[in-house]
Amino acid sequence: MFDLRPVGYVTGLLVAALGAAMLLPMVVDMFYGNGHWPVFLESALITAVTGGLAALACANGVRARLTIQQTFLLTTGVWLTLPVFGAIPFLLGEPEARVVDAFFEAMSGLTTTGSTVFSGLEDLPEGVLLWRSMLQWFGGVGIIVVAMVFLPELRVGGMQIFRSESFDTDGKVLPRAAQIAARISVAYFILTVACYIAYFGLGLPSFHAANHALTTVATGGFSTFDASFGVFKGPPEYVAALFMALASLPFVRYVQLMTGSTAPMLRDPQIRGFAQIVVVLVAVVTGYLIYNGTAAETAFRETLFNLTSILTGTGYASTDYQLWGPFAVTLFFFVGLIGGCAGSTSCSIKVFRYQLLFATIRAQIRKIHAPHGIFTPRYDGRPVSEDVLNSVMVFVAAFVVSLGVLSVLLGATGLDLITSLSGAAAALANIGPGLGPEIGPAGNFAGLSDTAKWLLAAGMLIGRLELMAVFAILTTNFWRA
Amino acid sequence: MFDLRPVGYVTGLLVAALGAAMLLPMVVDMFYGNGHWPVFLESALITAVTGGLAALACANGVRARLTIQQTFLLTTGVWLTLPVFGAIPFLLGEPEARVVDAFFEAMSGLTTTGSTVFSGLEDLPEGVLLWRSMLQWFGGVGIIVVAMVFLPELRVGGMQIFRSESFDTDGKVLPRAAQIAARISVAYFILTVACYIAYFGLGLPSFHAANHALTTVATGGFSTFDASFGVFKGPPEYVAALFMALASLPFVRYVQLMTGSTAPMLRDPQIRGFAQIVVVLVAVVTGYLIYNGTAAETAFRETLFNLTSILTGTGYASTDYQLWGPFAVTLFFFVGLIGGCAGSTSCSIKVFRYQLLFATIRAQIRKIHAPHGIFTPRYDGRPVSEDVLNSVMVFVAAFVVSLGVLSVLLGATGLDLITSLSGAAAALANIGPGLGPEIGPAGNFAGLSDTAKWLLAAGMLIGRLELMAVFAILTTNFWRA
Repeated sequence: MFDLRPVGYVTGLLVAALGAAMLLPMVVDMFYGNGHWPVFLESALITAVTGGLAALACANGVRARLTIQQTFLLTTGVWLTLPVFGAIPFLLGEPEARVVDAFFEAMSGLTTTGSTVFSGLEDLPEGVLLWRSMLQWFGGVGIIVVAMVFLPELRVGGMQIFRSESFDTDGKVLPRAAQIAARISVAYFILTVACYIAYFGLGLPSFHAANHALTTVATGGFSTFDASFGVFKGPPEYVAALFMALASLPFVRYVQLMTGSTAPMLRDPQIRGFAQIVVVLVAVVTGYLIYNGTAAETAFRETLFNLTSILTGTGYASTDYQLWGPFAVTLFFFVGLIGGCAGSTSCSIKVFRYQLLFATIRAQIRKIHAPHGIFTPRYDGRPVSEDVLNSVMVFVAAFVVSLGVLSVLLGATGLDLITSLSGAAAALANIGPGLGPEIGPAGNFAGLSDTAKWLLAAGMLIGRLELMAVFAILTTNFWRA
Repeated sequence: MFDLRPVGYVTGLLVAALGAAMLLPMVVDMFYGNGHWPVFLESALITAVTGGLAALACANGVRARLTIQQTFLLTTGVWLTLPVFGAIPFLLGEPEARVVDAFFEAMSGLTTTGSTVFSGLEDLPEGVLLWRSMLQWFGGVGIIVVAMVFLPELRVGGMQIFRSESFDTDGKVLPRAAQIAARISVAYFILTVACYIAYFGLGLPSFHAANHALTTVATGGFSTFDASFGVFKGPPEYVAALFMALASLPFVRYVQLMTGSTAPMLRDPQIRGFAQIVVVLVAVVTGYLIYNGTAAETAFRETLFNLTSILTGTGYASTDYQLWGPFAVTLFFFVGLIGGCAGSTSCSIKVFRYQLLFATIRAQIRKIHAPHGIFTPRYDGRPVSEDVLNSVMVFVAAFVVSLGVLSVLLGATGLDLITSLSGAAAALANIGPGLGPEIGPAGNFAGLSDTAKWLLAAGMLIGRLELMAVFAILTTNFWRA
C-alpha cells in the first residue's frame, strides 16, 4: 500500500477551505434576515473542523512531489469528498433534502453539471441559492486547474498534449497547481465580475445577477428560478451567451492575454474551431426557426442562447427547445456531445479531440498516395505523439461505452430510452438538462428514483474527470504496489 | 486522373454475374406458375448486357495489381453499382416499387441490413422474395471478401490487423480476392445448406426454409413474412440463433477448420469475446424477463433469438421486444452497437475493436507505474501497431460522428429523436429494424419520406464499408493525381 497521507492532506485543506467558504452564504442569509443562517454556521464548523483535522493528521507525510498513483487518488478523491461536505447545508436546513438529493445537488454543482433536484427555488433562503452557485463557481475554477495540471500529468484523455503550455514551473504537481490556480483565478474572477456588471446593467436584481454570473462563468447552469433563464428573456440572453462562450475557451489564453500577448489567443486552433462550430450551428438553427415562422430576432436570440448553453454544457434554458420540433431535439442531443475547449470550465468530448480525429483522418488519407510513408497527425502545427492519440482514442471509446452502460442501467431503473440516454449524456458531459418531459429543459430530476440519482451523480464525477482518471482507480493493477 | 478501367472491368463482371443470378428467381417463378417470371428475364438481360459491355470496354486496361486509389474506388463502386442493378426487378414488376424504394430495398439487401420498405410480403411472387434473400446472401459473402482482402489493403478501420491472416498469396489484390472468395464460399455454402436442413427438419416449408437460410447465414434479416420470424416461434428460433452466431464468427476460421486445424478457431480472441458477450447478455435479459413473470423457456428462447439477432445485425424479430420495458429497449439499442467478429457477415463496431480499446486502456494503466516505460497494447499475444490503433480510433470516432450527423439529418426530415437515432444506428450498423412504433421490430420503413430513405441507404453503404472506405473518396486529397 502506498502512502495516502499527501492525498489526505490536500483533500483535508480543500475541505477546510470549503467550510470557510460557507461563511459567505451565512452572511448573506443574515443580510436578508433569514433565520436560516445558523445552518451555514453549523455546516461550516463541521466541514472546516473535519477537513482541518484530516489535514493535520496527514501533515507529516507531505511531499511536494506526488507519485502518479497519489495524483490519481487526489484528483478523484477531492471531487468525491467535496460534494459530501458541500451537501451538508442542504441536509441540515432548508430544503432539508434527503441524503441522495443533497449529494446529487452538490455533485451537480461541483462538477458544473447543473441538473437540479430542487424546485420552488424562488422560496429557498438566499444563502442556499448562493451556496449552489458558489459550488459551481468553485467547481469551475477547480476543473481548470485539474485540466491544466493533473490530467496532463496523468496522461488522461490526451490532455498531455497541453502539458508544455502550463507555464514554466519546476515540475512538481502541487506547487504548480497552486501557482496556476492563483493566476487562473484572477482571470476567472475578472470574467465573473464583468458578467455580473453586464447582467446588473441590463436590469437583473443584484442578487440574481451575482448568482447567474457565478454559474455562467462556471458553465454550470444552476439558476435562482425554476424557469431558469426564461425569467430574463431578451438582452440578458446575449450577455449570457457571450460569457458562456468566453468561459469555454482555454483559460491559459486569458492569463497570457493579461501578460500582454494576444497572439496565442488569436492563433489557438481550439478557439477557432469552437467559434466555427458556434457560427455554423447558430446559423443553421436560426434559419430553421425563421423558415418555420419565428421572428428573426427571437429566432437568433433563442438559438444563440440555448444552443450555446448546451454546447458549452452550461445547461440554462430560456425556452423549451423541445417544442422547436424533432430536428432541434436530435441536434441538441448531439450538440451536447461536442463541448467547449480543453482547459476551460466546459466538459464533454471537447473541440480538440474532434480536431485530432480529423487530423488523424487526414494523415490516413495522405497515406493512400504513399502507403509506406509516415504521416503523423499534426495539431497546431506540431506532430502529435502516439501516446496522445491513444489516450484520445481511449477517451472517445470509453465515453461511448460509458454512455451505453449508464443508459442501460438507467433503463433498468424504469426510465424510457429518451430519458435514459439523454440523462446519461447530460451527466457524463456535465450539461444539466436532458430530453423528454421529465428531465428536459422544462423538467427537473427530482422525480427520478434514488438509484437513478446515484447513477447520474456517479456519471457526473466520471465525466468531469475525463473518465480514465476515475476508471484507472477501479482496476486491480492500479493498486499494485 | 488515374486509370479507371480496372475498376470498370471488375464492376462490370460482377454486374454481369448479378444479371446471370437473376435467372434463378426466374426459374422459381416459373416453377410456382407465377406470370411474373418475364420480369426477371428482362432484368437479367439489362443487367448482364450492361455489365458485360462495361467489362468489355474496360478490358484492355486490366492489371492484376491495383493501386490503392483503384482499390478504394472498386470497393465503394461495386457496393454502389450492384444495388442499382439489383433494384431493377423491383421496378419492372411486382411490387412495382418507386425508384427510391427499390434502391433502398436492394441496398438494404446487399449490405445485409435487412430494413424493408415492402409489406404484404406473403402476397409477393416467390421469385421476388427469393431475389431479396439472394441479394443478402451475395452481400454476405461479398463483405467477407472485402473484409479479408480489401479493407486490410486499404488500412480501413484497423482491419489491417488481420492482414497476415489472409493466407499466403502473391500480394496482388484481385487474384487474392478470387482465391479467398472461392475458399470462403465453400464454408458459406455448407453453413447455408446446414441451416436450410435444420429449418426444413423443424417443419418450415421448403421455400421459406431456403429463404431464411440464405438471410440467416448472411446475418441479413429479410424474411418472407411481414411478421418476420414471429411466424416460426419455438425450436426454429434456437436454430436461427445458432446460425446467426456462427455467421458472425471470422470465416477464415472455417476455412482453417476445413483443412483440419481446429486450434485457430479455439484460440481466436474475437470468438471468445463474442461468446462471452452473448452469454452475459442473454443471461441478464433472460433473468430480467423471468423476474418480471415470463415463463423460463419463453424468456430464454425469445431473449436468445432476438438478442442474437440484434447483436449480429441480422435484424429478425420474433416478438416486439419493445414491450419488454424500457431497460430492454435501451439495452437493445446499445447491443446493436457491439456487432459480431471482423471477417464475418456481421457489421457494427465489432468485437475486436472493443478488445483493442480495452488492451489500450490496460497498457495506459500499466504506464501509471512506469511513466516512461513503453507499453504496447497487445492483441492475440502480438503487439498492435500504431497504424492499427489510429485506424481503430478513427473508425470509432467516425462512427459516432456519422451517427450524430445522420440522426440530425433524419431529424430534419421530421422524424422524432428515437426514430432518427435508432434508424441511423440501424443503417450504419446494418442491423435492420430501429426502435419506436414506426421503424421498430413491429414496423416497416415504407412510411418514411424519400429523403429519409436515401439518407438511410447512404448510411447502410457507409457503415457496411467501415466508413473510411467511402469517406476517403469524398476528399479532394484522394483525387490528387
